Amino acid sequence: MLGPLSAFVLTPFDGDTVDERAFTALVEGTATAGVDSIGALGSTGSYAYLDRAQRSRLARLAVRSAGDVPVLVGIGALSTPEVLAAAEDAQRAGAAALLLAPVSYQPLTDDEVLGLYEDVTAAASVPVCVYDNPRTTGFTFSDALRSRVAHLPGVGSLKLPGVPEDPTAARAWLSGLRAAVPADVTLGVSGDASAVRGLRAGCATWYSVVAGVLPRTCAELTAAVLAGDDERVAAVEARLAPLWPLVAAHGSLRVAAALAEQLGVVPRAGLPRPLRDLPAPGQRAVAGVVAAGVGAGG
Amino acid sequence: MLGPLSAFVLTPFDGDTVDERAFTALVEGTATAGVDSIGALGSTGSYAYLDRAQRSRLARLAVRSAGDVPVLVGIGALSTPEVLAAAEDAQRAGAAALLLAPVSYQPLTDDEVLGLYEDVTAAASVPVCVYDNPRTTGFTFSDALRSRVAHLPGVGSLKLPGVPEDPTAARAWLSGLRAAVPADVTLGVSGDASAVRGLRAGCATWYSVVAGVLPRTCAELTAAVLAGDDERVAAVEARLAPLWPLVAAHGSLRVAAALAEQLGVVPRAGLPRPLRDLPAPGQRAVAGVVAAGVGAGG
Repeated sequence: MLGPLSAFVLTPFDGDTVDERAFTALVEGTATAGVDSIGALGSTGSYAYLDRAQRSRLARLAVRSAGDVPVLVGIGALSTPEVLAAAEDAQRAGAAALLLAPVSYQPLTDDEVLGLYEDVTAAASVPVCVYDNPRTTGFTFSDALRSRVAHLPGVGSLKLPGVPEDPTAARAWLSGLRAAVPADVTLGVSGDASAVRGLRAGCATWYSVVAGVLPRTCAELTAAVLAGDDERVAAVEARLAPLWPLVAAHGSLRVAAALAEQLGVVPRAGLPRPLRDLPAPGQRAVAGVVAAGVGAGG
Repeated sequence: MLGPLSAFVLTPFDGDTVDERAFTALVEGTATAGVDSIGALGSTGSYAYLDRAQRSRLARLAVRSAGDVPVLVGIGALSTPEVLAAAEDAQRAGAAALLLAPVSYQPLTDDEVLGLYEDVTAAASVPVCVYDNPRTTGFTFSDALRSRVAHLPGVGSLKLPGVPEDPTAARAWLSGLRAAVPADVTLGVSGDASAVRGLRAGCATWYSVVAGVLPRTCAELTAAVLAGDDERVAAVEARLAPLWPLVAAHGSLRVAAALAEQLGVVPRAGLPRPLRDLPAPGQRAVAGVVAAGVGAGG
């Protein structure tokens, strides 16, 4: 629904305050670096830690700063009324699409998750991207539920958490899922470490955290995959690969924040309490990756 | 810190609105039924689905309706500023203690959880009860972290999710934990199915969901355990036992709501969206437990 590369930007905090100037500059820089869409207020954008007024304001800033690049805005919250309010605010801000994860406190049933998407798509006037992220929501989608949700009018894309390690298994799974969802619903891969595998196996979009820090590098990688230029893919992947074990150990948000700060992409990429910056050993590991040239492509 | 039986009351919804009249009556009825404290806005009280104004209002109603019975108020939220605001509101309302779970979106590290309790105990003027509920938070406390948190000045109790099945193992674990936390910090058991085992193994408090629906029955059970009246314990337990498989299958909130409605403890115990009432087969199972006399003791 949004082109091959969607870059999810950080929301930089300075203490308990959002650094709106840094956020604006980050969105502007990302939008002009060759990405197809911007994801604002995703998990990387710490939406879950912001109140309604902050989210509404950041959605407006993101759309204004992204120029012609469409902006996907995260609207997840624990209660459905809160989700509906965030959807309304994001649409008023000019969001091209809404990103919705089944954020959970009480573990949700399949019917409850389906009901959430029914309520939101009934109210929304732009497409909803189903954000499947078991690590943060605690909720695991079955393929049967993915299919039920994807058939709701108003659903535009499924943002999948990753694809199987084995390329054949990845292709088989995605083609089965592809057949089970309407033709106009795109399948997208997140989990940057499995992006190349996902795009090769048939995903239409890479929903990327690292592209919010290194948009040019990720745009180059995406173009190389789509062009079948395996040599170029391998060269770019080799530059990014040292990040993946750090992401697995510390989570993509903490690593992206440390990376953005060390590369000077933002002056300060503080995280909202109770989250804390990557501890010193992780910071040193990110510094090693930076020294090895991960930022060379921008 | 609060006596042996703490009864957690539901927050009954009618659609998206809280039925404050039913809530008030429920707190009044529970407070006069022989419980030692009331837990308002716990998981059973759906705190995670309410906004600041609703929570503040319900905290005031709970304290006012509980008379002389102390009220523990849930203050959990995803962001620390939200938790601090809820703590301030609960204290202004007259809460005797604050209940705080490490509610998570990004999985939290031990240092982040410790930091959250540091921030909140530094600001609070009443004791904080550490709410350990991995099912809803996704966060698992180690005994080492429990000990670190319990040593913060201002922590009054640890609300443990359950105790080992085997009574000897339960006693060994609790006595080890008892030795690792300050003497004035109480250990309490939740998970109603393991309450008797927990109290027998040394827990000072039963933090109970079912006591918010059947307070007299649970007060009788607690008194019997403390008096060592095994016959009476077995008789009351036998009445409650058919509830435990339903709680395991559907979660205590959905079962407590269905039970409260079927027993007429509240006129309607709707749950906040996206949560849904217990589906029909579960409702029928609860009806079977009601028909078998679970409500006989009140």
